[in-house]
Amino acid sequence: MRVAELQIDPAQAEAFAAATREVGQASVRLEEGCLVLYAVAERDNPGFVRVFEIYRDPTAYQAHVQTPHFQKFRATTDAMVRSRKLLDAVPVSLATKPGVTP
Amino acid sequence: MRVAELQIDPAQAEAFAAATREVGQASVRLEEGCLVLYAVAERDNPGFVRVFEIYRDPTAYQAHVQTPHFQKFRATTDAMVRSRKLLDAVPVSLATKPGVTP
Repeated sequence: MRVAELQIDPAQAEAFAAATREVGQASVRLEEGCLVLYAVAERDNPGFVRVFEIYRDPTAYQAHVQTPHFQKFRATTDAMVRSRKLLDAVPVSLATKPGVTP
Repeated sequence: MRVAELQIDPAQAEAFAAATREVGQASVRLEEGCLVLYAVAERDNPGFVRVFEIYRDPTAYQAHVQTPHFQKFRATTDAMVRSRKLLDAVPVSLATKPGVTP
């Protein structure tokens, strides 16, 4: 389980969002161990993006960062990202309404 | 969509986690508009908890904070929380593996 905090160039917010949607959909579809990739921006600070990531296990995260779709995402977005903080996280509580995909 | 960042008294981490699991399960079960409540702690700073919340609409969030289970959670945990930052957020990308509940 990972949290990423990214400061994006606001002028690139739309391009960053498009790349994030592409890598998110590819990751949950193609990777057995990638369960959730949520990225949200602060309403009052749209350049500040938090990414919340759930993998089945640490191996699945290692596999994720090696995939062609992730490598493409990093190459595409690298110049859009002004700062990047990556954190390991542990679950406190994970509650989802059954049968609902946001 | 909301993000909360809470600094918890580390000595109260287990009690806080138990209260968070209880309110999380009650919220997604009993509230029509509460879709996701994920709370995670930093591995290297277990007192720092991020909560990631998805509601169907703003009305659902207003209803959430009025519920008895949320009021009980706030009363139970208030003294455990050293600081609290609440943020409105907007989606950038929300990807979940189909059929999987973490």
